[in-house]
Amino acid sequence: MGDATDTPVAVGIDVGGTKLVAATLSAEGRPLERRRRTTPARAADELVDTLRGLLDELVGDRPLPVGVGIAGTVDGDGVVRYGPNIGVRDLPLAVELAAPGRTVAVVNDASAAAFAEQRVGAGRGHREVVLVTLGTGVGGGIVTGGQLLLGASGFAGELGHLVVDEGGRRCPCGNLGCIEAYVSGNAIGLAARQRLIEPELVTVLRDVPELTGREVTAAALDGDAVAQELLTEVGGWLGTALASLVNALDPELLLVGGGAGPATAPWVLPAAEEALAARVLGAEHRTLPPLRLAALQDDAGTVGAGLLAAERAGTAITPRATAPEAP
Amino acid sequence: MGDATDTPVAVGIDVGGTKLVAATLSAEGRPLERRRRTTPARAADELVDTLRGLLDELVGDRPLPVGVGIAGTVDGDGVVRYGPNIGVRDLPLAVELAAPGRTVAVVNDASAAAFAEQRVGAGRGHREVVLVTLGTGVGGGIVTGGQLLLGASGFAGELGHLVVDEGGRRCPCGNLGCIEAYVSGNAIGLAARQRLIEPELVTVLRDVPELTGREVTAAALDGDAVAQELLTEVGGWLGTALASLVNALDPELLLVGGGAGPATAPWVLPAAEEALAARVLGAEHRTLPPLRLAALQDDAGTVGAGLLAAERAGTAITPRATAPEAP
Repeated sequence: MGDATDTPVAVGIDVGGTKLVAATLSAEGRPLERRRRTTPARAADELVDTLRGLLDELVGDRPLPVGVGIAGTVDGDGVVRYGPNIGVRDLPLAVELAAPGRTVAVVNDASAAAFAEQRVGAGRGHREVVLVTLGTGVGGGIVTGGQLLLGASGFAGELGHLVVDEGGRRCPCGNLGCIEAYVSGNAIGLAARQRLIEPELVTVLRDVPELTGREVTAAALDGDAVAQELLTEVGGWLGTALASLVNALDPELLLVGGGAGPATAPWVLPAAEEALAARVLGAEHRTLPPLRLAALQDDAGTVGAGLLAAERAGTAITPRATAPEAP
Repeated sequence: MGDATDTPVAVGIDVGGTKLVAATLSAEGRPLERRRRTTPARAADELVDTLRGLLDELVGDRPLPVGVGIAGTVDGDGVVRYGPNIGVRDLPLAVELAAPGRTVAVVNDASAAAFAEQRVGAGRGHREVVLVTLGTGVGGGIVTGGQLLLGASGFAGELGHLVVDEGGRRCPCGNLGCIEAYVSGNAIGLAARQRLIEPELVTVLRDVPELTGREVTAAALDGDAVAQELLTEVGGWLGTALASLVNALDPELLLVGGGAGPATAPWVLPAAEEALAARVLGAEHRTLPPLRLAALQDDAGTVGAGLLAAERAGTAITPRATAPEAP
């Protein structure tokens, strides 16, 4: 489906721990003009200045809706309550970016990605979609009844902190046994180092100076059996966490996205599907939701934030394009 | 708030593993006329006959909406896919109870209870509510955006099978580490027997011939320290599972219901709150949802099923009564 025009209907901005991307978007959520910047480290003022500068460049005086997806917990008023990777706390970002006639939406970046996938990505045509993002950390977003689930205060979708093993591995959040402690890039690196203690193990991972999920995935793609086994274990843990969500929410579709999604998929997805089939209640009496790769990759947060702002402003035409394809 | 009249607007039926209750309901969800029966064991035909007979008695030819909450997984077409405690499988109950002009809604019993609590019970005035029911087994229901979450196929809300300890205790569903394996009445009984292996332990539980959650709760109420400790552990597990849900859904309110809810509350609720405060992501930067006892007790399933049917038929006035009290 082509855009009727290339007239931008919104600006989407994805603020990650190291870089940020802003783009104007077509009515169907296609990025038109992009800008990239390095995310200012632990400097809320500088972050706000950078975002204002980008908006001046991309928007000028036009009253385009602005959506920001950011790595952190964001409340219903657009205040970034806690963004440890960016070093901000209680930053009223929606207010900071306000301008006459401008709708501003600020949400968690993975929630923005889930919204984008459901509106114009791999979840198009489905009303009940769960996205888990795999990367350095683990995030997620939930769409129910065709709407992004924000929860009472905007904090819904923190899927990295589903508990799978109470008393298990230490998570960066301070607790034990969150899924992030098993499937994040950092967790995969730790698990690999642990495995290398076995002296007889033959693997190229021994020769890698710094081990994270990235190196393990590269080794798996090169055919290293130990690396492939590590990613298969990751898939099993992920499937266990997703089974909890399927039991609670009964989604139509499960999506795996994030920077590490595509490369790890050959091992993670089949193992996760196996765990799902074993763990979803009454799996033999129901159709399990398909588990698929997300489609929008690096653009997901930008697109989702912008589309959400456009829908709130009433300027998006995407609802027409995303009516359920089947009853 | 009193009912304008005692004219029934719906019939609600709660079908449990051992007994079933049917009642006509006022527009505000108050049971008017009740009937009780023993649930026919492993006999779908007999169950249908019993329900039809009750409807003849309570409704006659009036076209009242009929809601059924039943212990099992129910799909979007009102087919009871799997009800192991009742011994039914793939029973098209909505079709079996159809009559000219009659709206029939069939849902899981705990989902019906969650809907009742949100509309006219302890969750009144809240749009995002999670209910967990504690009893012989563990169930639940979720209300998001003021609507009962049914999911893609009607199977949402199976909160007894949230995983808290992958590789942990065996659950009746066949898996390991579901929350039901830690907090159900049967699980509490098993944990108690396990504890009694310690020979030096002083507890009245030694003198109880059959140990389930019921006996442990009675001993706790009598002041037995070991029984109280067991229920405190149960609360910790429950809080861990609820923390997963809070991280995923960010509800306004958490409710604990079911037959075992009220009696176990003095030990279970404080311990669950403690686990929640420890485990919810960024708990120090947000308001945690209150954790409270459900209000409707034995009536919850009956009331919720009937109100849901009435709302689907467009005859309930409860939406007016349950508009959010605060923004």
